Amino acid sequence: MADFRELMKMRRAVRDYEDREVPVSLIREIIIDACEAPSGGNRQPWGFAVVTDRELMKRLSDESKRNLLEDMKTIRSPILRMYRPVLSKAEFNVYYNAPCLVFITGLTGVHSAPADCSLAAAYFMLSAADRGLGTCWIGLGSHIKDRSLLDEMGIPENHRIISTLILGYPRTLPAKPPRNAPKIFRIIG
Amino acid sequence: MADFRELMKMRRAVRDYEDREVPVSLIREIIIDACEAPSGGNRQPWGFAVVTDRELMKRLSDESKRNLLEDMKTIRSPILRMYRPVLSKAEFNVYYNAPCLVFITGLTGVHSAPADCSLAAAYFMLSAADRGLGTCWIGLGSHIKDRSLLDEMGIPENHRIISTLILGYPRTLPAKPPRNAPKIFRIIG
Repeated sequence: MADFRELMKMRRAVRDYEDREVPVSLIREIIIDACEAPSGGNRQPWGFAVVTDRELMKRLSDESKRNLLEDMKTIRSPILRMYRPVLSKAEFNVYYNAPCLVFITGLTGVHSAPADCSLAAAYFMLSAADRGLGTCWIGLGSHIKDRSLLDEMGIPENHRIISTLILGYPRTLPAKPPRNAPKIFRIIG
Repeated sequence: MADFRELMKMRRAVRDYEDREVPVSLIREIIIDACEAPSGGNRQPWGFAVVTDRELMKRLSDESKRNLLEDMKTIRSPILRMYRPVLSKAEFNVYYNAPCLVFITGLTGVHSAPADCSLAAAYFMLSAADRGLGTCWIGLGSHIKDRSLLDEMGIPENHRIISTLILGYPRTLPAKPPRNAPKIFRIIG
């Protein structure tokens, strides 16, 4: 149990995990903490799907990579394009072989859902760090379109994936990526 | 300095503030904490504009209300429409007469910027709570389109407002709005 500001500074994006399961009871506790996040009108428009099955994770990784590579043909994003070589490698798993994968989904039609679910993701990552676990938001792993895969995870038609997080016990902690000085445009008072 | 999980549970959305300025040095510290949030590719695509001038806040409130009422004519959102009566009241200030208003803006063209800035907002709100300050994300207060107002705050053309937060010393703390049991669709493993 760490002081918040200490925790915030020590939390890292973790991509290298011990080969060790995260107990389901612990995953549930972290999800309950995530639900402490504020949301527009307290609507709590979030849902969660948890995957610890390696075979399903591999299929999800392949699906997300395939969709991203397809989308790159039409989306003109230089940032996205940077990822093309790594996404093209068959052996690259976007979830870095983490032992657990959690999708936070948002109720469609709720205007604030993407922001609300991102706040829940922040709480999730901090709560996990507070319990000695590592996480990383995997933007490249959110592009699941195949309805049969979404059905397999129980994600209903009226929810869409907002945040994709991997979770596990860190094997190594990466160095802290440097932060820029804050870009404060103006203080008017 | 509170333990994270304690802090997370005691944080409230505050709309009732003491008539007391927040020192600029403290606002800067909270912004620096917000910048500890993770971001896609560590791009840190956020910017901040801080307003403590009451007259400017009133103009920003009027601008956001006007744009929302206008948008309601075409956007078919039952949730948005709920706010029509309160937005129509001339005396209603969307920022609740808080002593300080902070806009977190995201660099356009960065796909992850809305999520990144929401994570920064979560860190901002938690850091403020950790320092005895209150905040509230004001979704109704983000609809600033008037270029001259954006210029007045120094927000450049290539940034757009993602999160609008009020900040101050709480006069009263509201009761905690209840949380639903988490909607866990499935745990597969």
